[in-house]
Amino acid sequence: MKQKLYEGKAKILYPTEKANEYLVYFKDDATAFNNLKKAVLENKGVLNNNISTLIFKLLEKNKIPTHFIKQVSEREMLVKKVSIIPLEVIVRNKIAGSFAKRYGLTEGGDINPPVVEFCYKNDALGDPLMPEEHIYVLRLASLEEIQEIREMTLRINKILIKYFKDVGIALADFKIEFGRTEDGRILLADEISPDSCRLWDIETGEKLDKDRFRRDLGKVTESYQEVFKRIEGRV
Amino acid sequence: MKQKLYEGKAKILYPTEKANEYLVYFKDDATAFNNLKKAVLENKGVLNNNISTLIFKLLEKNKIPTHFIKQVSEREMLVKKVSIIPLEVIVRNKIAGSFAKRYGLTEGGDINPPVVEFCYKNDALGDPLMPEEHIYVLRLASLEEIQEIREMTLRINKILIKYFKDVGIALADFKIEFGRTEDGRILLADEISPDSCRLWDIETGEKLDKDRFRRDLGKVTESYQEVFKRIEGRV
Repeated sequence: MKQKLYEGKAKILYPTEKANEYLVYFKDDATAFNNLKKAVLENKGVLNNNISTLIFKLLEKNKIPTHFIKQVSEREMLVKKVSIIPLEVIVRNKIAGSFAKRYGLTEGGDINPPVVEFCYKNDALGDPLMPEEHIYVLRLASLEEIQEIREMTLRINKILIKYFKDVGIALADFKIEFGRTEDGRILLADEISPDSCRLWDIETGEKLDKDRFRRDLGKVTESYQEVFKRIEGRV
Repeated sequence: MKQKLYEGKAKILYPTEKANEYLVYFKDDATAFNNLKKAVLENKGVLNNNISTLIFKLLEKNKIPTHFIKQVSEREMLVKKVSIIPLEVIVRNKIAGSFAKRYGLTEGGDINPPVVEFCYKNDALGDPLMPEEHIYVLRLASLEEIQEIREMTLRINKILIKYFKDVGIALADFKIEFGRTEDGRILLADEISPDSCRLWDIETGEKLDKDRFRRDLGKVTESYQEVFKRIEGRV
C-alpha cells in the first residue's frame, strides 16, 4: 500500500515517483453538513473521476489552466502538484442551498449577474463565507491572486453553463478550489463533479447532484450516472 | 403621547409637524445577541444621545452628509427623514467580536488595511454577513450606492480614529447605517455611540463600550460616561 499524502472526505492524495505530480484516488465516501451526515455510495468515486476528467479536459481545451494531467484508472487521476489555497470558490447562477437559507429566499430563481462567493476552507470553523477583503487581510491570497481567481472562475462558469445546457442540464451553482504551483502559477484543482455542483434537469427540474444525498431524495449514484451518460464523449 | 412611527431596540422614531423631519428618542434599553440578552441601563439613552450628537456634528463639519439636524432634549434628536437601507455597515480596525470568532483569531491585533463589511439588517435571519455582490443581487442598493457608502464609511473611519485617539481611545470597530432621502441622496443615519462602537482605552486596554454589557464586565454606563467626559466639548 502506498503512503498517503493526504486523505480528504472524498479523495486520497498519493505521491508519485515525480516530485511535481500527485495521484488522486476517488473514494465512494459521501459526507454532508460538515461531516455530520455520512454514507458510502457504491461507484460514486468512479463516476466523479470520469466526470471530472471530462470537465478538466473541456476546460484545458478552453485555455483554463488546471492541475489535470490524465486519468490513469477507474478511480485514479494524475495531477500536477499544487498547494491548495484554503478557499472554497462558489459560483451561483440560481438561488439554492446556503444562499437561499441565508437570505430567506425560495430556491430556483436566477441570480443575475452570477455571483462569485468565497468561503474559508476550514472544517473547524464551518467553512465560513468570506468577503473578498477578509481573504487579503488574513493573507490567504494576494489582491492580484484574488482577482485572477475571480476572473478565471467566471470564465469557467460560462464554459460550464453552455456545456451542461447542451445536454439539458442547468448549472445552478458549483464549488471549485485553486492551488499554487511552486513557481507561483494558479491552477484549478480539486474536482468538478455532482459532488461539487448543483445540476438540475432543465425539463423536469430533477436534481442530478449531491442534494439527492443531502436531502434523502434517493437514486444518488443513478443521477451521477445520468450526468455522466449525457456528457460522455463530449469535450 | 405622540404616535410612534417605529420602535427599535434602543430608539423610538416619532413624526414631527414637518414631513421631512423625524424625532429620535434614545431609550435606556440594551439588547445583545439578537435580542437574547436584555437589560435597562439607567441613563444610557441620555449618554448615547449626547455622544451621537457630538459625533454627528464632527462628521458634518468634515463634510459627511448625515441625518442630524439638532439635539432637542436630553433624550431627543431631530433628524432628516430617510428610508433606512437594510445594511449594517461595519468597519474593523482591530480583530474583535464576530470577526475574531468567525476566523478563530485572538482579539486585539490590527486589521490592516481596515475592512468594511456589510450585514443584511434582518433580525429573523440573524443579520448575516453579506458579500458586496449579494447586496446588488438582492437589489438592496445599486452598485453606485454601494461604492458611495463604502467610500463614505472609510472617510468616517479616518475622522473617528483620530477623534478618539486624541482622547486616548482606540476605535477597534464600529457599525453604522445609511438612509436615502426622498430625492435619492445617501445620508449617514442611526447613531454612533458606545452601543455601536468598540472603544478601547489605549493605555489600559479597558473596554469602554457595549462589550461590557455583552460580556458582563460591569460598569457599563460608567464607561459610556467616561467616553462622553473625554469627548465633551470637542467637535
